[in-house]
Amino acid sequence: MRTLKLTLAYDGTRFVGWQRQAEGRSVQGELEAVLARFAGDPVTVHGAGRTDAGVHAYGQVASARVDVTHDTATLTRALNAQLPEDLRVISVEDAPPDFHARFSARAKTYLYQIRNAPIASPFERHWVWHVPEPLGLDAMHAAAALLVGTHDFAAFRSVGSEVSGTVRTIFTSAWRDASGLLTYEVSGDGFLRHMVRAIVGTLVEIGRGWRPADIPALLEGGTRAEAGATAPPQGLILARVDYD
Amino acid sequence: MRTLKLTLAYDGTRFVGWQRQAEGRSVQGELEAVLARFAGDPVTVHGAGRTDAGVHAYGQVASARVDVTHDTATLTRALNAQLPEDLRVISVEDAPPDFHARFSARAKTYLYQIRNAPIASPFERHWVWHVPEPLGLDAMHAAAALLVGTHDFAAFRSVGSEVSGTVRTIFTSAWRDASGLLTYEVSGDGFLRHMVRAIVGTLVEIGRGWRPADIPALLEGGTRAEAGATAPPQGLILARVDYD
Repeated sequence: MRTLKLTLAYDGTRFVGWQRQAEGRSVQGELEAVLARFAGDPVTVHGAGRTDAGVHAYGQVASARVDVTHDTATLTRALNAQLPEDLRVISVEDAPPDFHARFSARAKTYLYQIRNAPIASPFERHWVWHVPEPLGLDAMHAAAALLVGTHDFAAFRSVGSEVSGTVRTIFTSAWRDASGLLTYEVSGDGFLRHMVRAIVGTLVEIGRGWRPADIPALLEGGTRAEAGATAPPQGLILARVDYD
Repeated sequence: MRTLKLTLAYDGTRFVGWQRQAEGRSVQGELEAVLARFAGDPVTVHGAGRTDAGVHAYGQVASARVDVTHDTATLTRALNAQLPEDLRVISVEDAPPDFHARFSARAKTYLYQIRNAPIASPFERHWVWHVPEPLGLDAMHAAAALLVGTHDFAAFRSVGSEVSGTVRTIFTSAWRDASGLLTYEVSGDGFLRHMVRAIVGTLVEIGRGWRPADIPALLEGGTRAEAGATAPPQGLILARVDYD
């Protein structure tokens, strides 16, 4: 048995999300089905981040214990030949036996894209959130910086999520503006369910008139109802997962 | 009655093409339906280029004679509010009464995108042609330059197209390479049906080993069968239409 580390890119538009479900195309399900054909046995794949329906990945990482003998370059080509076009294997590497895509991850980096212009581009609609009214970028920059550090993100998780701990450490949190394409980049040691989208929804409210000082208030005992609405899924991209 | 000049962008993936047809969503049909709602009467829209199914536009131009009183900014907003997300009106302008999007056009510019890399990006599959094997760019640059000028493009039109004249003038014809994203830009006074895609198919064959000198031979009495296959539609974009 080998432990494989697979780096994946996918267009989340037509997936029900990362996780295998009773109905619909999941990234995990597509990958497990193709790997099982090579291995001749059922294969379980673990993903670093369980992306929701409509959320994309440039660099999702998955791990699997598989009994195959192909070299990694052949495996990459063979998997891509059988996987659907909206899911590509960027690389396959051999990993230590105890490597687990989620539990071994040291940091994850997400991007969230907003088109801040009166007219949306028809080519971007599956990967950006279109916000037509002008946003106050200065306040959004200042607010984003206030998220860096170790905080309680209870106000930024999806209601009904049953995780016990809500403290996470954010390493970087910043906006870039390229001619109206606003990209929020955030990296951290872990993220609660819907946390990045709740942060983005709140930062956009700050761009519309809330104050950056609302961020420390939300981090110190704020409730989900006091933060901004969850931004739509299609703007979110799992960009990178880092390991030691 | 006013004559309007509409500049349009669309993602051609889910359209049967520009032209209204008995079945399916056409760009012309969607636009005419929404304009007719404002005018209260049927409206006929003429497009500068009749793009095929799967072909995109950044700057298609359409003309229409319409009895509406809204100013052009209001009209732009109102049209976008009613049109589907994959079709956007970039601008509406008042034009002289005899303006016709196709007959008044002085030049059209198309782009054709190729991803020349072993693995295709899942995010590009609707707007690039994926060519995995390495292409000889130097030969493709040289061959592209040989197309500039006034030539008989009979070898580069779709078989069965019934246009009489096949002489056209090409103003610019060149490749750009941005880290494996090859973009072919071609502008001319007019294009035969499938001409850009036949040119690209031929230039790619030159990248695979045909010689640049095959281009002058094709322009001087070559037949369609001697040129390369028609490149797939999704890489083609109508970028711009110029008027006097």
